[in-house]
Amino acid sequence: MAISLQENGFASKIIGVDAIREHEKKAIRRYIIDEAMPLKEAVLQSDIIIVATPVDVMLKVIPEVLDLVTEKQVVLDVGSTKERLLESLKNHPNRNRLVAAHPMAGTEYSGPEAAIPNLFDGKYTVLVDTADSDADAVKITEQLFESMNMDIAYLKAKEHDEHTAYVSHISHISSFALALTVLEKEKNEGRIFELASSGFGSTVRLAKSSPDMWVPIFRQNRDNVLVILDEYIETLSKFRSLLIKKDFKQFYQLIEEANNIKKIIK
Amino acid sequence: MAISLQENGFASKIIGVDAIREHEKKAIRRYIIDEAMPLKEAVLQSDIIIVATPVDVMLKVIPEVLDLVTEKQVVLDVGSTKERLLESLKNHPNRNRLVAAHPMAGTEYSGPEAAIPNLFDGKYTVLVDTADSDADAVKITEQLFESMNMDIAYLKAKEHDEHTAYVSHISHISSFALALTVLEKEKNEGRIFELASSGFGSTVRLAKSSPDMWVPIFRQNRDNVLVILDEYIETLSKFRSLLIKKDFKQFYQLIEEANNIKKIIK
Repeated sequence: MAISLQENGFASKIIGVDAIREHEKKAIRRYIIDEAMPLKEAVLQSDIIIVATPVDVMLKVIPEVLDLVTEKQVVLDVGSTKERLLESLKNHPNRNRLVAAHPMAGTEYSGPEAAIPNLFDGKYTVLVDTADSDADAVKITEQLFESMNMDIAYLKAKEHDEHTAYVSHISHISSFALALTVLEKEKNEGRIFELASSGFGSTVRLAKSSPDMWVPIFRQNRDNVLVILDEYIETLSKFRSLLIKKDFKQFYQLIEEANNIKKIIK
Repeated sequence: MAISLQENGFASKIIGVDAIREHEKKAIRRYIIDEAMPLKEAVLQSDIIIVATPVDVMLKVIPEVLDLVTEKQVVLDVGSTKERLLESLKNHPNRNRLVAAHPMAGTEYSGPEAAIPNLFDGKYTVLVDTADSDADAVKITEQLFESMNMDIAYLKAKEHDEHTAYVSHISHISSFALALTVLEKEKNEGRIFELASSGFGSTVRLAKSSPDMWVPIFRQNRDNVLVILDEYIETLSKFRSLLIKKDFKQFYQLIEEANNIKKIIK
């Protein structure tokens, strides 16, 4: 976001705050941020404060930031779960200056090395429970995401968490489990991975994702994820039972149904 | 392969044979092949015959092609399963002119529109049971794949089928099942897919794959795939049980273990 907002001229200055000093230095060397400073100092100098931390840290940092801001500043959280955070903030006197946003794009990497230009171009951002934010804060947030060429959708926190469990969180468990299964089998056969198809690479890509980011997401969205994980295991068991019965006619039909994803994912 | 072998000068002429006449015409219009003709005629005119059909059709086409060839011609099968095919050919008088190959690259698309340049560049080809092929045929095959800048690995049919079950076939089931799970849930909410993250796109990409190609693979490699599918379901159940128990410490450790895939898949 720092790269995009600088490049498109939306931001005249980017201040970075990171728990890891080395990350701040790297971000400056790479011209991702103009300057680094402690959180409080940075908040006091900024028009817009974007909080992008693991979602458990959000629970602590967002109230700290909201404690510091005035009615002229806007705070954005860009985390992957919303219900828990917004519930915890509902009595905060500055809740109205927060806009809860979820830009639906990312990679499996983290830290300043992972920052890439145009990541968000043409993707969606979800704005959550905007009725609880001041109209001017929502408007500035919309302008910010529009400047990055993003489309905007509006959801309630509960809907957001349920849908992201389906279109993002379950993919990660699927991928972690696939990686573990294959690693377990092939641990004594390093060479065999040279043969891994690009298809395999694509399905395990997300298994490189950081546990520091993902465990808090699963903790907060546990109930939604559990429902889908049960359905996923059930669907896999259907494939299994058809293989056992050698019912390849049904197996064919299941694959044909799965092909409908073509109409939806480009 | 037609595009690559033409571009790099290995082939002076490419003859295409397809069950669908419209595909042959398209391949000519797109300069993928020089000419199309019936199978028998094409085999008689060719130095190297590459058979790329669904693996059930292979069982019928390869013996037909081998019936036609002389000791100067080479036949390549480039299918995803080997044990069944090679077992069925072991008494064919021209078995020695066949080299069983599996170039480990592909996309989820099929037909002439799916042909793309450089698909194989830098990837591995597995040559299977080369001891059963004539040395000159193996050599020509090696030169062919090397001309496409591919590395070559050598495996027995049984090893090949077991390993590809792990590094390719299971990914497809994982992806088909994920697509079905999410399609089922979101069928009345088309719009929600606009929010699908690129991560989701990556894990369901293979779910677009054709059942005509994949059902025969699962039929032939059923036993290996069943073993892994069981292990995959068991690993997912481990994640499930940790979520139920809210044991996020163990959950964290599992993700960390899965992260080891980084060392292996670039």
